[in-house]
Amino acid sequence: MNLVKIKDIFTSPDIDKNILIGGWVRAFRAKKFIELNDGSTIKNIQCVILDSSIDEKIIKKISIGCSIKVKGNLVKSIGKGQNFEIQISSIEILGESDPDKYPIQPKKHSFEFLREQAHLRIRTSTFSSVMRIRSKLAFGIHEFFNKKDFNYINTPIITSNDAEGAGEMFKVTTLSDDQIDTKGTDYSKDFFGKKTSLTVSGQLEAETYALGLGNVYTFGPTFRAENSNTSRHASEFWMIEPEMAFYDLNDNMDLAESFLKNILQFILDNCSEDLAFLDQRLLKEESQKPKNERSEFTLIEKIKFTIDNEFVRLSYSEAFEILRNSNYNKKKKFKYLLDEWGCDFQSEHERFLVEKHFKSPVIIYDYPSKIKAFYMRLNDDGKTVRAMDVLFPGIGEIIGGSQREERLDVLEKRINEMDIDEKELWWYLDLRRYGTVPHSGFGLGFERIVMFCTGMQNIRDVIPYPRTPKNASF
Amino acid sequence: MNLVKIKDIFTSPDIDKNILIGGWVRAFRAKKFIELNDGSTIKNIQCVILDSSIDEKIIKKISIGCSIKVKGNLVKSIGKGQNFEIQISSIEILGESDPDKYPIQPKKHSFEFLREQAHLRIRTSTFSSVMRIRSKLAFGIHEFFNKKDFNYINTPIITSNDAEGAGEMFKVTTLSDDQIDTKGTDYSKDFFGKKTSLTVSGQLEAETYALGLGNVYTFGPTFRAENSNTSRHASEFWMIEPEMAFYDLNDNMDLAESFLKNILQFILDNCSEDLAFLDQRLLKEESQKPKNERSEFTLIEKIKFTIDNEFVRLSYSEAFEILRNSNYNKKKKFKYLLDEWGCDFQSEHERFLVEKHFKSPVIIYDYPSKIKAFYMRLNDDGKTVRAMDVLFPGIGEIIGGSQREERLDVLEKRINEMDIDEKELWWYLDLRRYGTVPHSGFGLGFERIVMFCTGMQNIRDVIPYPRTPKNASF
Repeated sequence: MNLVKIKDIFTSPDIDKNILIGGWVRAFRAKKFIELNDGSTIKNIQCVILDSSIDEKIIKKISIGCSIKVKGNLVKSIGKGQNFEIQISSIEILGESDPDKYPIQPKKHSFEFLREQAHLRIRTSTFSSVMRIRSKLAFGIHEFFNKKDFNYINTPIITSNDAEGAGEMFKVTTLSDDQIDTKGTDYSKDFFGKKTSLTVSGQLEAETYALGLGNVYTFGPTFRAENSNTSRHASEFWMIEPEMAFYDLNDNMDLAESFLKNILQFILDNCSEDLAFLDQRLLKEESQKPKNERSEFTLIEKIKFTIDNEFVRLSYSEAFEILRNSNYNKKKKFKYLLDEWGCDFQSEHERFLVEKHFKSPVIIYDYPSKIKAFYMRLNDDGKTVRAMDVLFPGIGEIIGGSQREERLDVLEKRINEMDIDEKELWWYLDLRRYGTVPHSGFGLGFERIVMFCTGMQNIRDVIPYPRTPKNASF
Repeated sequence: MNLVKIKDIFTSPDIDKNILIGGWVRAFRAKKFIELNDGSTIKNIQCVILDSSIDEKIIKKISIGCSIKVKGNLVKSIGKGQNFEIQISSIEILGESDPDKYPIQPKKHSFEFLREQAHLRIRTSTFSSVMRIRSKLAFGIHEFFNKKDFNYINTPIITSNDAEGAGEMFKVTTLSDDQIDTKGTDYSKDFFGKKTSLTVSGQLEAETYALGLGNVYTFGPTFRAENSNTSRHASEFWMIEPEMAFYDLNDNMDLAESFLKNILQFILDNCSEDLAFLDQRLLKEESQKPKNERSEFTLIEKIKFTIDNEFVRLSYSEAFEILRNSNYNKKKKFKYLLDEWGCDFQSEHERFLVEKHFKSPVIIYDYPSKIKAFYMRLNDDGKTVRAMDVLFPGIGEIIGGSQREERLDVLEKRINEMDIDEKELWWYLDLRRYGTVPHSGFGLGFERIVMFCTGMQNIRDVIPYPRTPKNASF
């Protein structure tokens, strides 16, 4: 007899059929009612022990967290809270769970506690919902690009470039401690014959493939060795980086907007039950905050807000004027006050534009070159580059991108101005030597969009085993 | 006017329409015929310069590798070799390409040479075909699991486990050289507060998620620091590792067979042109070998062979007897002769079973415990484990997997026998303490299946930027 998934029972219940299910006990009431979950859905199925049908010895072994197989009849339920239930004909105990020791107790645990039980927190409703949504989001992203004939590429994780410029890097080595020489280690003896690190971005390599395959994207892990313990930063996270030949910045903005709307719609269409649960969870959490700190939107409203609104597009200079002249700036409600053209915007400024001023997602373009990377295309004004940031409610920047500098002479000048070693980038410059074309791309931190879709406030709670300073457990 | 992709022209040609395309010049004959490719398909489109329609100065700039935009009329072609062509009304040179310097010349380059031009080799027919197939395979894999409601999970890349046991590991650190002490470095000062490495497998973490979500899979990079310079090994490669709760070894074998057949069929259905090209490429290459060294199959035949045949399943002991009694063993045609039960099979033995004996893909199960990992479920005979290897023509093992040891006491005994630090694995053992269930999984090296589908003989030629000993370029 084949095991049936609980999700399939809820999708198309075969009433009055004898079925076999397996899962973990989430609750056990009155020595009679078992709430069973198998991870396929947020929903538990109620399994009822009929009087004296099951050996008392077996019933004694049933406790929260234990794993069982249940055979029985699926019937319409007359009880409250469920449409059907399983009338148990037999139970097999697969694995017991000592109720005094099992860390996941039938009560509310703090997320901090659950991080220390990251191997078991996936058995809770919240984390299983988050991780099912994370999985669906990943698939929605692949499907979006596959439909558009983008090629998925795996850019290298171990890199000898230190010109990527996006942040501090982890060193990768096989040298033993006694091969290290404080007067100067001979890295030609290291595994790769030179110093290597973990990548901070696949963009530069993605560009090389765009200029051969046309449209490509990466979706892989990237790393930052910054010692910052915030709720938004992890040392290891996944990035999506599309890169498109023959795209200018407008095409890039169009793609970014359509991409975000499509994957969010995909989640609305495919994760309604998990979303509804997380929506309610967030409402409860928000209700405990002071009124002025509560979010304007529920989780699902926030997702719909970004799908339903056309993204407002304006230049950095326009955004700067709006922000500088805003009441928030004048009345010093911003933590960072805006005064001089050229400064970078903070999350509070970005959220002001989205949530207060435009009441819509926003794309800002043409940023001052001084605050952006070397590879962004210089505008004719000589002081701004064809960069863009997409801003979302609740978080601010969710996507950063640009049209890339395709002109060899301009790029070389920028590289030299920024003191980057041109020799390191010979292959990147080759792209501009041989058949260069206008091209553009952007980057989305995967965990940012998972946080946005799940309402989780800490990046540690949307990654199975998060890596942060002083933490690489499991 | 929007750019049209060349692939879309071939799929649904809009004859007598004026269109705009962009791409790289692959050939230029008689100052008149341009073969243009934009990476969307292996096919070039012929663009014809009509007499005196284009400025001589522009024509002079056209050379192999340069990038252009072409506007013109799509017409039926009377010439040989193409059904339609573009009659050019205007050309825009986007990026020139000095024909004396451009490394990709219109001749056959060796794969060794092209590895040194890995940023440009994607502009060749062979590599663009390989990478398009790689991309489609990745999507086919995600789609297979998505349809089956498996959850995709990202297991950690940086790990503090050294019990994964699959191979030598790279160290990950932010310690500077002068923080290294040959008398004993204080790793509590390192970024994560302890020694960390790059993962060799996500399996153990995947198991934790299977025992909460039911069915999961990983698809991410893994690493080996072995100093082995073979055509089959890379230091960085991608693995797919599904892990299923309530699956025994038979379920596992069923899934592995169905998985492989499905993704191979997906490639046949979606990559026919690239496959046809690589099929011919391989035929040409094989024709230069001595007859007895040639493959029995063409590339496409080999793929169909694995789809059309039911995989033969037999135990290690049965396979051992067949191999030991074979003529190849008796006449010493094997490099490694088989004598005593318990030895590991080599690729030559695996290929003999597939190609000579059964003429079918083969799954061998119930391997001697001594040659397999600690987490595999021990059989009642006490000397074999519920392992399985799937063997393919041309390569031997393509998938390795097992039913996992779900019994706490048996697992602890194995861990101790193998001198693994039990304390490191407290969380893995917890799975057996709280609600353990029978479960199984397997691993597929992504590049193995890409090599199988493309006929490429060296793993360096199916990875955009391969990492191997002494090589981390680009």
